[in-house]
Amino acid sequence: MPDAIPVDSVGIVAPHIAQFETPLTLSCGQDLPAYQLVYETYGTLNSNASNAILICHALSGDHHAAGYHAMSDKKPGWWDSAIGPGKAIDTERFFVISLNNLGGCSGSTGPTSINPETSDIWGENFPIVTVQDWVESQARLADRLGIQTFAAIVGGSLGGMQVLEWSIRFPTRLKAAVIIASAPNLSTQNIAFNEVARQSIRRDPEFHDGRYLNEQSVPTNGLGLARMLGHITYLSDDAMGSKFGRQMRHDNYQYNYGIEFEVESYLRYQGEAFTKRFDANTYMLMTKALDYFDPAGETDGDLSAVLSRAQCEFLLVSFTTDWRFAPERSEEIVNALVKAGKHVSYAKIEAAEGHDAFLFPIPRYMTTLNSFLTRIGNRILKEAQ
Amino acid sequence: MPDAIPVDSVGIVAPHIAQFETPLTLSCGQDLPAYQLVYETYGTLNSNASNAILICHALSGDHHAAGYHAMSDKKPGWWDSAIGPGKAIDTERFFVISLNNLGGCSGSTGPTSINPETSDIWGENFPIVTVQDWVESQARLADRLGIQTFAAIVGGSLGGMQVLEWSIRFPTRLKAAVIIASAPNLSTQNIAFNEVARQSIRRDPEFHDGRYLNEQSVPTNGLGLARMLGHITYLSDDAMGSKFGRQMRHDNYQYNYGIEFEVESYLRYQGEAFTKRFDANTYMLMTKALDYFDPAGETDGDLSAVLSRAQCEFLLVSFTTDWRFAPERSEEIVNALVKAGKHVSYAKIEAAEGHDAFLFPIPRYMTTLNSFLTRIGNRILKEAQ
Repeated sequence: MPDAIPVDSVGIVAPHIAQFETPLTLSCGQDLPAYQLVYETYGTLNSNASNAILICHALSGDHHAAGYHAMSDKKPGWWDSAIGPGKAIDTERFFVISLNNLGGCSGSTGPTSINPETSDIWGENFPIVTVQDWVESQARLADRLGIQTFAAIVGGSLGGMQVLEWSIRFPTRLKAAVIIASAPNLSTQNIAFNEVARQSIRRDPEFHDGRYLNEQSVPTNGLGLARMLGHITYLSDDAMGSKFGRQMRHDNYQYNYGIEFEVESYLRYQGEAFTKRFDANTYMLMTKALDYFDPAGETDGDLSAVLSRAQCEFLLVSFTTDWRFAPERSEEIVNALVKAGKHVSYAKIEAAEGHDAFLFPIPRYMTTLNSFLTRIGNRILKEAQ
Repeated sequence: MPDAIPVDSVGIVAPHIAQFETPLTLSCGQDLPAYQLVYETYGTLNSNASNAILICHALSGDHHAAGYHAMSDKKPGWWDSAIGPGKAIDTERFFVISLNNLGGCSGSTGPTSINPETSDIWGENFPIVTVQDWVESQARLADRLGIQTFAAIVGGSLGGMQVLEWSIRFPTRLKAAVIIASAPNLSTQNIAFNEVARQSIRRDPEFHDGRYLNEQSVPTNGLGLARMLGHITYLSDDAMGSKFGRQMRHDNYQYNYGIEFEVESYLRYQGEAFTKRFDANTYMLMTKALDYFDPAGETDGDLSAVLSRAQCEFLLVSFTTDWRFAPERSEEIVNALVKAGKHVSYAKIEAAEGHDAFLFPIPRYMTTLNSFLTRIGNRILKEAQ
């Protein structure tokens, strides 16, 4: 609980719900007849609706990106370090929108929702949604909020993939794309890790083929395992080493299968905590969206060709110790954009935190983000004059 | 099945069993009253027993390192590419011994054996054995075979840790130590991956707290998961990429939770195949032995200090794309040996295969191994004159 709301916080915020009754045709061919999206906004939309920034969340993210829901909250939103008055994404200047994606488990329609056609919980029958579907649903939310063109769309990891898709699919609807710790598609190794995570969940008997909510059950063992594994891949080898090294739980080895090293305890805790806040079907769905994303697939693997459609400015950011979405993957995007003659800035940030670095307020990273967005904001002001 | 035994094969081989009745006091403090070790030998021991090479196996290895057990065998032993007449470890010159370590599941006493005190299957109650315990038991096997001093002891990965331990524990009993794709201890990340593997097994309800054999059951789901995860870490990102890329199973995405990418199918197959040949309790035990190994622990983290006891020559080999036991880890050993004034050669081999490279007959690797062992063989001959 914050004793007082920090001065650079967006303060106490409340989520909104937008209900959509026009069916959405998904990549899988299925129609989603109606759905809702939960979102938050920070800052004020200006009179010509030109100062909006959309935040796209990653695998386990949600709409609560900044501020507090109540004074009793122990922690602010997941990207509070970057969003707020005077922060990198400055809410004194920009109107920031953050939503929970379709298929999520934090209020938007997803596997934990009721399928109106069957009056049953969707569960694993919720259609698999893709990055393209998210972008489509985000565009409808923008329409609803009266935003034709975003000043910027910003996202890290899977969020960055949504930003990339926006630049291709709706080239005139954003002035700038900020793609952080992301990739033009998953590597084979990434797909492999996702498959192990999904199998961890599916093989838990409490998963009940995705119908666990109907069975008053939760596949905590499997979802916890998936999170433990994910957690290892979000951290760098060095970061884990400096945080835990070979620190032991007891003074001497116990020579049993209990916890010997602190890192084991930490991972188990992370896994267990995750199962209390996240839905297993949503986790599976999010990993599939990652697997499917491959915009260059449309242009025979030529990323530059598909990116030639883009009209916005780009900022790409990568982190030196990120091995899940290594700098080389961001550089593939940068190179393709350069080849396509686009305006692109790129910052490779020295950081020990691995993939997780995108959530940390690393000074050079925050400055880069802020300078870029300030420039975009100034350009928009100038164009409006 | 080989149509005919290749000329550079050790041919048809049969395992031997050595029974030990003298209790072995283990690192955990427990006494193992009696035990057996299964082993194979290739080549001929010379009259002064100076040409013996001991092979130490890795996590999922066994005693069957070379040759065939029957003409109907589809594959030879696990390191047949390196062991045989005229091969890197030349059986025309050396007498090669390969054993299944204590706690294994291929014939040596381990969790699948009967505990004579209870007449019950040991299962998870089999004491955790360490690298030190293995080396002690290997020394007893050497005594039994009349070998006072090995020409060389050779091992990759966890096998390399045994070689390192030999050089410290029995400095006068080996002329040379060949430590391949190994490390002076596990990194935090390695321990973390092991913990996820163990939890995968333990959380499978078919594990029955390690008593699955009594329950006529096998934790195939959990052990399969552990192997899938292990497999990813044995391969390099690049190797997986070149082998599978984003190759799809079907012409189009199916948008369901079945197999979309070939790499998913491959991993599931690898996981399942492993559960047919390996015991879950042994897998857990082997991962614990990896976790515990840390010879510099005795000397306050000073690897050079503990290695000062060694008297043999060393060859260290690492592989460029190995991220589970990265070249830097081998170089820690090299540097510590140099600091301790030991005779050490080091080869960092260009290889795409990741950690698995140590099992491949990569020409520069095989030549390095052969040259080193030839020199050691010549030195021994000269000393005997």
